[in-house]
Amino acid sequence: MHLLADHACLIVHGSDKPGIVAAISALITRNQGNIVALDQYSDDPTGGAYFCRVVLHRPNLSAALPEIEDDLSRTLGDGFDLEWTLTDQSVPKRMAILASKQDHCLLDLLWRHRRGDLPVSIPMVISNHTTAAEDVRTFGVPFFHVPSDVGSDKSASEAEILKLLVGNVDFVVLARYMQILSPDFLQKLGVPVINIHHSFLPAFIGAEPYKKAKERGVKLIGATSHYVTTELDEGPIIDQDTIRVTHADSAAELARRGADVERQVLSRAVLWHAQDRVIRHGNHTIVF
Amino acid sequence: MHLLADHACLIVHGSDKPGIVAAISALITRNQGNIVALDQYSDDPTGGAYFCRVVLHRPNLSAALPEIEDDLSRTLGDGFDLEWTLTDQSVPKRMAILASKQDHCLLDLLWRHRRGDLPVSIPMVISNHTTAAEDVRTFGVPFFHVPSDVGSDKSASEAEILKLLVGNVDFVVLARYMQILSPDFLQKLGVPVINIHHSFLPAFIGAEPYKKAKERGVKLIGATSHYVTTELDEGPIIDQDTIRVTHADSAAELARRGADVERQVLSRAVLWHAQDRVIRHGNHTIVF
Amino acid sequence: MHLLADHACLIVHGSDKPGIVAAISALITRNQGNIVALDQYSDDPTGGAYFCRVVLHRPNLSAALPEIEDDLSRTLGDGFDLEWTLTDQSVPKRMAILASKQDHCLLDLLWRHRRGDLPVSIPMVISNHTTAAEDVRTFGVPFFHVPSDVGSDKSASEAEILKLLVGNVDFVVLARYMQILSPDFLQKLGVPVINIHHSFLPAFIGAEPYKKAKERGVKLIGATSHYVTTELDEGPIIDQDTIRVTHADSAAELARRGADVERQVLSRAVLWHAQDRVIRHGNHTIVF
Amino acid sequence: MHLLADHACLIVHGSDKPGIVAAISALITRNQGNIVALDQYSDDPTGGAYFCRVVLHRPNLSAALPEIEDDLSRTLGDGFDLEWTLTDQSVPKRMAILASKQDHCLLDLLWRHRRGDLPVSIPMVISNHTTAAEDVRTFGVPFFHVPSDVGSDKSASEAEILKLLVGNVDFVVLARYMQILSPDFLQKLGVPVINIHHSFLPAFIGAEPYKKAKERGVKLIGATSHYVTTELDEGPIIDQDTIRVTHADSAAELARRGADVERQVLSRAVLWHAQDRVIRHGNHTIVF
Repeated sequence: MHLLADHACLIVHGSDKPGIVAAISALITRNQGNIVALDQYSDDPTGGAYFCRVVLHRPNLSAALPEIEDDLSRTLGDGFDLEWTLTDQSVPKRMAILASKQDHCLLDLLWRHRRGDLPVSIPMVISNHTTAAEDVRTFGVPFFHVPSDVGSDKSASEAEILKLLVGNVDFVVLARYMQILSPDFLQKLGVPVINIHHSFLPAFIGAEPYKKAKERGVKLIGATSHYVTTELDEGPIIDQDTIRVTHADSAAELARRGADVERQVLSRAVLWHAQDRVIRHGNHTIVF
Repeated sequence: MHLLADHACLIVHGSDKPGIVAAISALITRNQGNIVALDQYSDDPTGGAYFCRVVLHRPNLSAALPEIEDDLSRTLGDGFDLEWTLTDQSVPKRMAILASKQDHCLLDLLWRHRRGDLPVSIPMVISNHTTAAEDVRTFGVPFFHVPSDVGSDKSASEAEILKLLVGNVDFVVLARYMQILSPDFLQKLGVPVINIHHSFLPAFIGAEPYKKAKERGVKLIGATSHYVTTELDEGPIIDQDTIRVTHADSAAELARRGADVERQVLSRAVLWHAQDRVIRHGNHTIVF
Repeated sequence: MHLLADHACLIVHGSDKPGIVAAISALITRNQGNIVALDQYSDDPTGGAYFCRVVLHRPNLSAALPEIEDDLSRTLGDGFDLEWTLTDQSVPKRMAILASKQDHCLLDLLWRHRRGDLPVSIPMVISNHTTAAEDVRTFGVPFFHVPSDVGSDKSASEAEILKLLVGNVDFVVLARYMQILSPDFLQKLGVPVINIHHSFLPAFIGAEPYKKAKERGVKLIGATSHYVTTELDEGPIIDQDTIRVTHADSAAELARRGADVERQVLSRAVLWHAQDRVIRHGNHTIVF
Repeated sequence: MHLLADHACLIVHGSDKPGIVAAISALITRNQGNIVALDQYSDDPTGGAYFCRVVLHRPNLSAALPEIEDDLSRTLGDGFDLEWTLTDQSVPKRMAILASKQDHCLLDLLWRHRRGDLPVSIPMVISNHTTAAEDVRTFGVPFFHVPSDVGSDKSASEAEILKLLVGNVDFVVLARYMQILSPDFLQKLGVPVINIHHSFLPAFIGAEPYKKAKERGVKLIGATSHYVTTELDEGPIIDQDTIRVTHADSAAELARRGADVERQVLSRAVLWHAQDRVIRHGNHTIVF
């Protein structure tokens, strides 16, 4: 959970081919590294998509990083069709949170972070309402109020949010933000955005999923965390969960009980993303 | 679980109004009955929809049934806007199973029945394939093979199935039957039909839900038991459940693991229906 | 969830006998009440233990309460062997929280209360550490620091806690308080005490259950909320839950992940207790 | 799930040390193998216990096995403190089932095997009762009846069972066998024995766990699959699960509902054992 001094996370993905693990592990060994964890997945060992996550330990890692990266470029560029990223695990990812009136996901993330359960820093919370300002600042986190534009043109508020975010954050979490971000915003932002949707996707896409769940008469409700894409609620799913409900639960009761699922599913997605456990592949995720 | 001698199940539903429980319980008391279980639900105590399920015990119940029914007609017809059914719990409901090639739901129901866990009789299994014939007959249950018509007109095979079912069964279970029943068939059949759909409805309606689940990259798969209506996979849901899957599960592996969820969800729906625990209300169910 | 004006909760328990529901419902009707919810359970309809919970609505309830109580005394005392309590649902129960260094259960209860999800008032939090003082006061709740006595004699600190609690609270929650309360304390306190134990009881009674769970190599960890009795971790269980863990989870990781289960299980127990849904019967609970 | 032609499973465990993965993967590469799956776990990367499971594919595997084994002996014996086993995945493990009167776990395993969901062969079922004989033989599996000795000396029946098993099976499953096997029997048998215990161990060790669960008033019941050791219900746990129950469930109802959990937990343990996913380490299991 904690930041890990002298640890790096290597993500490799591309076309599967015999010898990848041998090449990677030999590289780590000759760079005085030790493999602490290794997961791999191939959707077809004969040339399909290959994914690997290695956590390695190496004394004085930061000094050795450039050399290891050079070796990776040489080794994986030579005869393999692979991309890679190497991340220093002692450096927390910078996570901004966008929120609205509902505070359960927001406060849960702030509280988990204070507890030391999320290996991130939180440079800011941005909300289109002021209700959470005092709570957020109690956690020692800067709070910025950016009201949402009235009407369908959100460009002014999006521009203000971009000014706060760009260059300052490594990823963004929508903690029940309830505003749809424009393709232009996502493109300019340029970092991953994680959303929590309050249904078991792909059921009940869009607004008011608890109301829709009540209308359909489902016996389970759920929540889904996913990366945001330009298609509403269609991005790659990171995690989901469900709980049992009954005919006697009103839509308001579904919302109350669902809040517990939402904050758990979102916090797992954030943790796994922060630990470089989630690899995007088309509209899917590999979660190691 | 067992059939209960001298027990009856009373289902009452209609418009809520003060005094219903008092009227019902006084009626049972004056007919020498004892209330063994009582559940009620009202979606709005000031005139909304009201539902009640009472299990009562009365020595020599069968002799007293006509008198109790007369009393119910008088009492609940007088000043209340309620419908009721009274069911002798010593008489098993007659359940037909329609199946196809997949045998997991079919065999699970037959096995639970033999074990004494389902208060039903099983007068017949009908399948559009012969693969399960020997297994079914080993359980002492008659097996009928009715091949599905080729093409979109299923009227000949539906007619043959109707001939077997009508008058002989109290409800029908589609144990992964994989054929869509026509509105005309359902209307002529005239008894409830319970289906198991291999997804968490309303996600992945229609064919090949595990394939669709794999394509969408969900992290949970599920199953849904529901009453069949003329709208495909849109009928009132009786029960649902989900299990956790990962990126590494192929569509075939989802199908293998989902089979366990399907047979559990279907067997619960069948048990609850057989115990008169499920009340249909519009497109919803009340499950007591 | 909210406090319910003009609603009362009637709990009846004692020996089962025909006619109880009829008597209760007739009583409510003749006192101009309407039954909003009714649950009952009998462990043996022929003279076993009987339990009933009725929520009733009556305009101007508070004025009518004495008369209803008189009627209950007459009706249920006459020919029945039953005890009853009638609780005005518009009055919140006063809940004190005892906490220690771990803040997850404490903050979760305070946050749920502020959100309006717990029908209680929180007159005070008492802790043997000062770490949570500022957080608690941010929620507008008085915080008292009562250090635990060093050594086995806890009588001085218990006396100080009793002075704060007695007469001021309707029940007490131990939110990971980690101190064993003496029989004398419990007797003098005279109100129910709810504890959260960080294991699936009866497994891993006593100290360090996550360490014991790791040593045993279990594949699930759990949490248990129960009423405190003079026997350590042996009181009537209100709720339990488990989550899946693996060989790779360290004892510290079990504790981190278990914290989520603990706060959920505790919050459900508190909610159900506050709603008069939990009836103690010997060392068991009936949860309606 | 199916047997995998030209696939082998390599299990390596011992003391962790830098370079193990590099050595293993280089070895596989130089033997013309391709790594299809790789999982590893170390409880302490600086010299703790190390575990690795590799599934490798190699054309004409069986011919190459002796050479690969020689290479493994040389490579892992040289500078490493590691043990290994290499298993041809095209050869099913031979699984005997010992059963008694309860048939749910027995029939579930037979049915899963027939479905192709368990990569094993089933050379025999042995029971101390004859009730399941016909069912077992319907699945095409030999059935042997060995009555349990009356009294505490089970040596005669154990001797008869040993005569049937020794040399003919690779592991044994106790599918609710309900007899305690003597240390002498286990020692002479010499292959792993998997048991299903009908509680969430370590709660409710020994006889009648559902009765004990009812007496304690738990809100969840569970099942545990574990390797049998000479200590009753104390062996390494392979898998566990729980389901929610209520005060209204009788001990008989707990047994009925628990049967579903038992058969699922046991079937998972059998599948994972058959796939060489389970490594025993002291009283723990590593499950890859």
